[in-house]
Amino acid sequence: MAENLSEAGLDTIFRTARTANTYRPDSVVTHDDIRAIYDLVKMGPTSANMQPARFVWLTDAAGKARLAAHASGSNAEKIKAAPAAVIVAMDTNFHEQLPWLFPHDPTAKHWFPDAAAREIAALRNSSLQGAYLIVAARALGFDVGPMSGFDQGALDADFFAATPAVKSNFVATIGHADPASIFDRSPRPDFETFNTFA
Amino acid sequence: MAENLSEAGLDTIFRTARTANTYRPDSVVTHDDIRAIYDLVKMGPTSANMQPARFVWLTDAAGKARLAAHASGSNAEKIKAAPAAVIVAMDTNFHEQLPWLFPHDPTAKHWFPDAAAREIAALRNSSLQGAYLIVAARALGFDVGPMSGFDQGALDADFFAATPAVKSNFVATIGHADPASIFDRSPRPDFETFNTFA
Repeated sequence: MAENLSEAGLDTIFRTARTANTYRPDSVVTHDDIRAIYDLVKMGPTSANMQPARFVWLTDAAGKARLAAHASGSNAEKIKAAPAAVIVAMDTNFHEQLPWLFPHDPTAKHWFPDAAAREIAALRNSSLQGAYLIVAARALGFDVGPMSGFDQGALDADFFAATPAVKSNFVATIGHADPASIFDRSPRPDFETFNTFA
Repeated sequence: MAENLSEAGLDTIFRTARTANTYRPDSVVTHDDIRAIYDLVKMGPTSANMQPARFVWLTDAAGKARLAAHASGSNAEKIKAAPAAVIVAMDTNFHEQLPWLFPHDPTAKHWFPDAAAREIAALRNSSLQGAYLIVAARALGFDVGPMSGFDQGALDADFFAATPAVKSNFVATIGHADPASIFDRSPRPDFETFNTFA
């Protein structure tokens, strides 16, 4: 029987967690921290366990500068100044991995013959995994700064030229946020605004 | 300073949580439970706070049968037998809500003039919100059964005929799982399989 999250736990992953813009000068994200985050991310459910997300982690100045070169506006400086950044990408040929990822049904590889449908499934499921990454990093004490403002074509040409079926989905910085960098919380909708009972 | 999740909390949302197939006969999901789940979901970050997800909740036999009519194979019976089900949908005209959802920049509504780009942004961000829903429900003691096997065109024609900009993304059942219904865990990749440091 699983234990419900404590009030403090709900705060950590949802209620008081906030998107980071800049990070504390003493913030460090190690490769071990990143492995611990992924060990949680990979447990999150995806359709037929397809796990289409491909993560490229940037932890040194050269890597962050390489990523920042493709970012829009203030995102470039945010990436360069962050302890770590990650490209959440997706393999649109994820179906080739299904024989070992989904042993329940050896035919699963053949459920996805259509490239356009695979692109949608990859975007849906790698986004689920991107959300698991945001939640997992918060659960382990980190703040996250997700961003969509970058030149996708240039980023993909730089990082994924050798694997053209891999495309970027979104980017995030990770570290321990400078509280002064947090924006005012944007409004959140009442239940009735975007929910219905049918 | 946020508190890291406990080991038990990490188990609840990621490590021991499993996709539900059928639910215990005594499982109940109330409208108040659903509101509590959404109160967490809406706090999760989306690009420019666009909150594109639209949730349709089915909690009575008629509603679940209506949804089940569009589900593939065994999914129909799973939906009818579950305490509750939800359609995670997306509003591809989410940009019309940005003036109140993203007051930081009154021009945000005009960042999304292209319908094809809006469809991608809606799919990405409503999927993030779908993942927040899975995690939030687990955090509050529920099990979730996400599924992609349904006739999207027929579902959308049935539920969203009056709002053609709204399209279904995925469906999930919610309740307290019958442990006997849980499949063996599918394999999870080592870090090196789908991650790189660059």
